Amino acid sequence: MSSQKERLWWEREDLCYKDGHLFFSGESVTDLIGLTGTPAFFYTGKRILQNIERLHTALDQLESHKIFYAIKANRFAPLLTHIKDTGGCGVDVCSPNELLHAFSCGFIPNEISYTANSMTDEELKLLANNPDVVLNCDSLSTIRRLGKFCSHRKIGIRVNPAMGIGYRDNETLKYSGDKTTKFGIYREQFKAALQLAAENHFIVDTIHFHTGCGYLNNQLSIFSEILEATQWFLDNVKDLAFVNLGGGLGVPHDCDDEALNLDAWVSVINTHFDGKGITICVESGDYIVKDSGILVLEVNTVEKKRNTDFVGVNGGFNLAIEPTFYGLPCEPVVHRQKTDLMKPVTIVGNINESLDVWKDNFPMPDQIKEGDPLVFINAGGYASSMMSNHCMRGVVSENLLI
Amino acid sequence: MSSQKERLWWEREDLCYKDGHLFFSGESVTDLIGLTGTPAFFYTGKRILQNIERLHTALDQLESHKIFYAIKANRFAPLLTHIKDTGGCGVDVCSPNELLHAFSCGFIPNEISYTANSMTDEELKLLANNPDVVLNCDSLSTIRRLGKFCSHRKIGIRVNPAMGIGYRDNETLKYSGDKTTKFGIYREQFKAALQLAAENHFIVDTIHFHTGCGYLNNQLSIFSEILEATQWFLDNVKDLAFVNLGGGLGVPHDCDDEALNLDAWVSVINTHFDGKGITICVESGDYIVKDSGILVLEVNTVEKKRNTDFVGVNGGFNLAIEPTFYGLPCEPVVHRQKTDLMKPVTIVGNINESLDVWKDNFPMPDQIKEGDPLVFINAGGYASSMMSNHCMRGVVSENLLI
Repeated sequence: MSSQKERLWWEREDLCYKDGHLFFSGESVTDLIGLTGTPAFFYTGKRILQNIERLHTALDQLESHKIFYAIKANRFAPLLTHIKDTGGCGVDVCSPNELLHAFSCGFIPNEISYTANSMTDEELKLLANNPDVVLNCDSLSTIRRLGKFCSHRKIGIRVNPAMGIGYRDNETLKYSGDKTTKFGIYREQFKAALQLAAENHFIVDTIHFHTGCGYLNNQLSIFSEILEATQWFLDNVKDLAFVNLGGGLGVPHDCDDEALNLDAWVSVINTHFDGKGITICVESGDYIVKDSGILVLEVNTVEKKRNTDFVGVNGGFNLAIEPTFYGLPCEPVVHRQKTDLMKPVTIVGNINESLDVWKDNFPMPDQIKEGDPLVFINAGGYASSMMSNHCMRGVVSENLLI
Repeated sequence: MSSQKERLWWEREDLCYKDGHLFFSGESVTDLIGLTGTPAFFYTGKRILQNIERLHTALDQLESHKIFYAIKANRFAPLLTHIKDTGGCGVDVCSPNELLHAFSCGFIPNEISYTANSMTDEELKLLANNPDVVLNCDSLSTIRRLGKFCSHRKIGIRVNPAMGIGYRDNETLKYSGDKTTKFGIYREQFKAALQLAAENHFIVDTIHFHTGCGYLNNQLSIFSEILEATQWFLDNVKDLAFVNLGGGLGVPHDCDDEALNLDAWVSVINTHFDGKGITICVESGDYIVKDSGILVLEVNTVEKKRNTDFVGVNGGFNLAIEPTFYGLPCEPVVHRQKTDLMKPVTIVGNINESLDVWKDNFPMPDQIKEGDPLVFINAGGYASSMMSNHCMRGVVSENLLI
């Protein structure tokens, strides 16, 4: 019985063991895959709304705010339409096809922000034709070429404060720092950018920055330093109405992480922006969807090789590349509550690559067997959206539970 | 004029500058993208045939050999059918959909080898129904479960000699080594595997191993040690007719690499297998297709950020992930022959991720400008086959030139 056991770090009301069976969004995982088979992604619409509401509640402590959900985290159409239906937030897109996809899911131009880099002329023409889409320009080239297609448009400027932040200081998740990156306009070129905007009769009403992904409580001091470093940019913009802090709010990935304290986070924001009459925008992706999704696979191979116990499953790193390529911890969860008999195993996928390891040397129940489902939590963000069909093993169903 | 300049390391008859313009497979790159736009992959069928013929010529020094092209490197249907049409080799597949895809491109069962891991029961049933497909079993579980669906089938056993090889000793490209991997059956479990095969009345006629990717001349001594380490397995198989050496033959990635000496490679093989009446099989992927492909992008942003000169293009790491995720060098090539005025630039894509850097601090012509095509060579293998639609920037044309 669940009540007799201590809850595991990831268990919550809509993702937990009940009478020893794993439940997600009110359904047993066994029942869910009875309908779909595996591999399958399941997303819970309720959790997404809770995440958005929690963000809103915290941000209500500011003078004014907006949320743009970054659809590159998960663009599954039913999920986007569900977010639109709730009316809780707009979306951030980063390519022409993402813009058209947002339209197709019901979002209207002024609910959409567009934050891209290395933009083509065709892209800029599309944005010129959609003046109500909030456009954050991240280079002088963008501003100059946008001027070929329109003028008197409101624009944002993405800036780079030369400081970065990322989950456990992971360099692959930082978008800014000592090393010069492609993102945004640096202080050295910022006045030239404002000059270019003025020459093209653009009104700069937004300063945007996004410096990294996945930060948690112990990085809030860096977050504060980043906000401090952006003040110089703000002070140089006369029509400033919005400051977009980007995304980057993280979620716990293993038992060593604790959830981000949103009140502390908002308090940092208020320290820097309170009383300025500015609307604060955030562009969260992972924070809204990551813990709303699970990926269910099936164990097909349980076998000792040399002295290592392997568990092979019917899906590989092409379905969710963060553990392999970004080194993010991923938590495997069994469908039956764990007993006390645990042993370290190495969980591997079905792709012919040496990198195709889900989890190395991780304690799992001794009784795990071929035919069992195996669940990876935190599969709601940057999994299906980055998926490939490598080895033609990319067929997977996606399912929204509302 | 090309004749007046020294050839660059990657130039060859079908990929070189002519009168200052870049030509590929007899066409100027400018003309090619005039038809398709960018981003676009182009593959030259002639180069693929040359690569296959060069392999055959070398392997003809052995008693008997077969080539199975590993389609996970590039499964573009016209390319596969072209390979089939030439009659030069069969294919290796690693999933049910790859098997069906090979059928759809004209290959018949006995031209196909199947080498997968973490196989499902459905997969094994498919293989039971296709007894002429050469099946390499890489676990005891596979052999045991195959026995549920058939008997008296010929099978291969993939073994793991616990030694690895990879381009510049890159760990992500090694499939074997000190650390136990999911691939193949180790010496410790090999006799149990033979016993299981015997119990199911399978005839083991093939020993298969693949221990890493991208090796060149300076790793041939390791290759020889690997072949030596496999002898013990061979000696224990009474019906042995084939030894499959896997793939892994590399191609040069930058000016520091020299092409693999196939005669030296075959000589190593002969040292270990000559006179044994065995057919040697190879499963090359990259060696056959990698240098047959180019990816053409377009420069849309040329801009200094802080003190770094950036060149932004209309395609990112989602189109070709090897440089970003495996650290393999990729060579950017301009469509007009370089002048003597060069400067270091950082070439970046259009994906909103900090990893989206094609080339850091690389000397490029000073005159590179927005609107120019930019070519990445060696884009024929593990590029489009691993491509994702991340940020919905995955639209790219693929084109076979014959």
